[in-house]
Amino acid sequence: MSLSNIDIAQAAVLQPITSIAGRLGIPDDALEQYGRHKAKVALPFLASLRDRPQGKLVLMTAVSPTPAGEGKTTTTVGLGDALTRIGERAMICLREPALGPVFGMKGGAAGGGYAQVVPMEDINLHFTGDFAAIQIATNLLAALIDNHIQQGNELGIDVRRITWRRVLDVSDRALRDIVQGLGGVSNGYPRESGFDIVVASEVMAIFCLATSLADLKERLGRIVVAHTRDRMPIRARDLHAHGAMAAILRDALAPNLVQTLEHTPAFVHGGPFANIAHGCNSVIATDSALRLADYVVTEAGFGADLGAEKFVDILCRSSGLRPSAAVIVATVRAMKYHGGVDVADLPVEDVPALDRGLANLGRHIHTVREVFGIPCVVAINQRAEDSPAEIDALIAGAARLGVTAIPARHYAEGSAGAEDLAREVVRLCAEPSDLRFTYPDDATLWQKMKAIATQVYGAADITASTAVRTQLKRLQDEGYGRLPVCVAKTQYSFSTDPRLRGAPHGHMVDIREVRLAAGAEFVVMVCGDIMTMPGLPARPAAESIDVTDDGRIVGLF
Amino acid sequence: MSLSNIDIAQAAVLQPITSIAGRLGIPDDALEQYGRHKAKVALPFLASLRDRPQGKLVLMTAVSPTPAGEGKTTTTVGLGDALTRIGERAMICLREPALGPVFGMKGGAAGGGYAQVVPMEDINLHFTGDFAAIQIATNLLAALIDNHIQQGNELGIDVRRITWRRVLDVSDRALRDIVQGLGGVSNGYPRESGFDIVVASEVMAIFCLATSLADLKERLGRIVVAHTRDRMPIRARDLHAHGAMAAILRDALAPNLVQTLEHTPAFVHGGPFANIAHGCNSVIATDSALRLADYVVTEAGFGADLGAEKFVDILCRSSGLRPSAAVIVATVRAMKYHGGVDVADLPVEDVPALDRGLANLGRHIHTVREVFGIPCVVAINQRAEDSPAEIDALIAGAARLGVTAIPARHYAEGSAGAEDLAREVVRLCAEPSDLRFTYPDDATLWQKMKAIATQVYGAADITASTAVRTQLKRLQDEGYGRLPVCVAKTQYSFSTDPRLRGAPHGHMVDIREVRLAAGAEFVVMVCGDIMTMPGLPARPAAESIDVTDDGRIVGLF
Repeated sequence: MSLSNIDIAQAAVLQPITSIAGRLGIPDDALEQYGRHKAKVALPFLASLRDRPQGKLVLMTAVSPTPAGEGKTTTTVGLGDALTRIGERAMICLREPALGPVFGMKGGAAGGGYAQVVPMEDINLHFTGDFAAIQIATNLLAALIDNHIQQGNELGIDVRRITWRRVLDVSDRALRDIVQGLGGVSNGYPRESGFDIVVASEVMAIFCLATSLADLKERLGRIVVAHTRDRMPIRARDLHAHGAMAAILRDALAPNLVQTLEHTPAFVHGGPFANIAHGCNSVIATDSALRLADYVVTEAGFGADLGAEKFVDILCRSSGLRPSAAVIVATVRAMKYHGGVDVADLPVEDVPALDRGLANLGRHIHTVREVFGIPCVVAINQRAEDSPAEIDALIAGAARLGVTAIPARHYAEGSAGAEDLAREVVRLCAEPSDLRFTYPDDATLWQKMKAIATQVYGAADITASTAVRTQLKRLQDEGYGRLPVCVAKTQYSFSTDPRLRGAPHGHMVDIREVRLAAGAEFVVMVCGDIMTMPGLPARPAAESIDVTDDGRIVGLF
Repeated sequence: MSLSNIDIAQAAVLQPITSIAGRLGIPDDALEQYGRHKAKVALPFLASLRDRPQGKLVLMTAVSPTPAGEGKTTTTVGLGDALTRIGERAMICLREPALGPVFGMKGGAAGGGYAQVVPMEDINLHFTGDFAAIQIATNLLAALIDNHIQQGNELGIDVRRITWRRVLDVSDRALRDIVQGLGGVSNGYPRESGFDIVVASEVMAIFCLATSLADLKERLGRIVVAHTRDRMPIRARDLHAHGAMAAILRDALAPNLVQTLEHTPAFVHGGPFANIAHGCNSVIATDSALRLADYVVTEAGFGADLGAEKFVDILCRSSGLRPSAAVIVATVRAMKYHGGVDVADLPVEDVPALDRGLANLGRHIHTVREVFGIPCVVAINQRAEDSPAEIDALIAGAARLGVTAIPARHYAEGSAGAEDLAREVVRLCAEPSDLRFTYPDDATLWQKMKAIATQVYGAADITASTAVRTQLKRLQDEGYGRLPVCVAKTQYSFSTDPRLRGAPHGHMVDIREVRLAAGAEFVVMVCGDIMTMPGLPARPAAESIDVTDDGRIVGLF
């Protein structure tokens, strides 16, 4: 592959977004165009589709990733295009890329090779302003909290117990921990606070779980931002912040329609973190796509232990969405990594290591098929360096686990490379499926966390300090025990130690910290070190990104 | 007037933006639509107009304002509509509203009554994402500075000498002065810093003065963000930041086309502060409008002492734009205020006070006509409470100064209320005009500041501490003496004391601080207390802004 992602994307001939929408039966007056190739689809039109039958939902998940990622987005695009190619009416639903990583380590997040959503520069840079709106809503709430205190603190907010943090869509480690309000009386009360990246904001999670503008506003009002000295919660509603926040988010809440390189329609909408939040694109986008297409492919962040678990236990539980099949993306590279190979040696053929690494795939297959009850297929996201022996070993390994593994070459070949995968997905979708949750609603928060740790992570048990246990008891007493839990842990291991590759079992999972997301409606269990504000690397991608005098973006990869 | 601004705006029947553009001769393929009623006009198309003759440029300025403002935006809209009404081909150019004030004290900034640009909610809230892009570009540069230091500080940046601040589009006093980089080694070096409101960013000023994408990038590269221990400047270019910053700003740089309630085309683009920056919409928008229309009305921030002076000495000097006429907005209310009346008593008729207050108008007329050499008219932005005797006194007072003052009722009546004003403007534009700058390029920074203080503010002289004088000498030695100066002082008085109303003279203007804006190409002279991050009031406007379940914004005034 000598062409870069941006070269391929910029060489593409796009169809007008009105044509893409027209093929889906979306009338022109339901489109708010953002230029010729992006559009928001109006919420009233989408609400009018609620009586239509739903298409089949396909969940794209993956093995525990290597630091480079295994290509879920790319495979989502490739599968969508391949479904279109074999004559199905298909759509895909993706998360919006965050700017922080685009300018930092990771580069773009709109797929890769011949499996991309376009216009890729727009999607990676500004797009339609959704993240800007989420950022402003989050920061407006923060300003209203400090302003309330400055103006007399009628609600009695305890400045030591403010949990609401500000956000930016820039990777900026210097803002993780700050002291604000310095400089004297007119600047407020000095206190510790900090910034997260915008995708870590609870507003982002709420945005993606909301089913309507009314539901959005209701959830925003329920956000708990602080407590009083006597531990009474202060909500966004108490500050009269939720109306203005919803007003800022109004336009953003309509899903963004774009297309793949092969003109398959794609909703790219929302993008919460997959650790501190649930890691899936907006429910409104996915639900709407299911009324517009017969097959909808959507991705969940990180591996199946995090993304798929949250998709099932948080998103499906609250939204009623039900996947008909799941695709587990695996790479030869990741299997060798889990078999113990150093990152530098991953390009070298090593079938024994790959065989050892299959334990990781096996655990994820178990989770998807046995724990959740979703029929699944393994997609081998093939790379040029993969040897035939390695591919065969991966196929054979999956077969021993009773699952078909299918090499997919969409990165290099586009839809033609993923036709077999598409046919298997169609076959799986015709099978009966009966989604099961990892735990029932009425289990305690402790029981819920334990169920995930033992059934999905292969852990022996969970532990927590007295402080965390006290906090869990308080949440339970306050009625939050009914909420699902959202685990924030490393994506690199089933354990809380990123160095434990493969499929560790019998380990203990320690809950280090608990955070209530009362608006998003989950309780975050922080297990291990979780970074909610990334830093920039030694050579940030920003240094090579540029724009030519005639307006062409270059250096975005 | 029983209907609120938003009621009037929401009741309006808008024309498709393609129709508005079509009347200007802008082809569809040069439009990037943002929904049906907003569009960006592509830069290559606008560049292709550079050979066309320019229309007449009309500068909208004002007397020293009361805290409520005197209605420059409203009068710009009213005059544009009235020019259209009398058969002229007219456009208006406005600044984009900042969200901070929208959610804080001031409410919307898209005109008022029957003289508004629409869709007003969109323009006041998100619009097309320009400010979000400017915010990200500013904060990316900040993150790259701290990251450079964290990764080894090859350039030798002195952490005590970083002047670049981050920005948000939220009024948040708690962020004015912070200590960042707390929390240990991985979060960087603790240091003092702070946030400004996005309109105060040098990136905003650069954005509005740039004449092309190439010029934008060049200017961004020249921004001085810090110094080394031995006082060598560190520029954005040294951090390889300017390419990525320009890439983020690429889409934003195309002007936003909207319409007035009466369908006059309007560019609403950019919006730098009028104290710390020059306070005018983008040069690209104004220059383009002059190729598309015969009359273009544009506003400059605050009173003529600040906005008009900077428009002439900074914007006209660098861009080559030349106004043919100026309109000085005056209100009965402001004249009484400058005559010494308390704010609470302003609704009461008081002709003697108004007569005293005319001194303020006189000084501004002198500045515009004698110092700058621009033919001018006074527009009396009429309010229901103004008495006929007061209006007559204002007209008579202006007549004594040799200037026509014309009552304008566009707020209540739309274009019909400003017809007389439009006819006078057309007449003035036919007069010869010969723009003069307050000072020549080759004067020293001290001489430039003194020229403004004595000729425009009526001051006796300027003063500065030894530290400021040393700093000015250093800037002079470094070659920045050729730049124009940008005075940051109170808008409420010709002096640096906001309580000195009317037309104080013989006062001293102290330069408290000097800041180099090497990319925007001016030297900021801070005279008095200047707030670059507003705070929210006791009852923020955000508390009453809301959105209904069916998506209608309410409470925005």
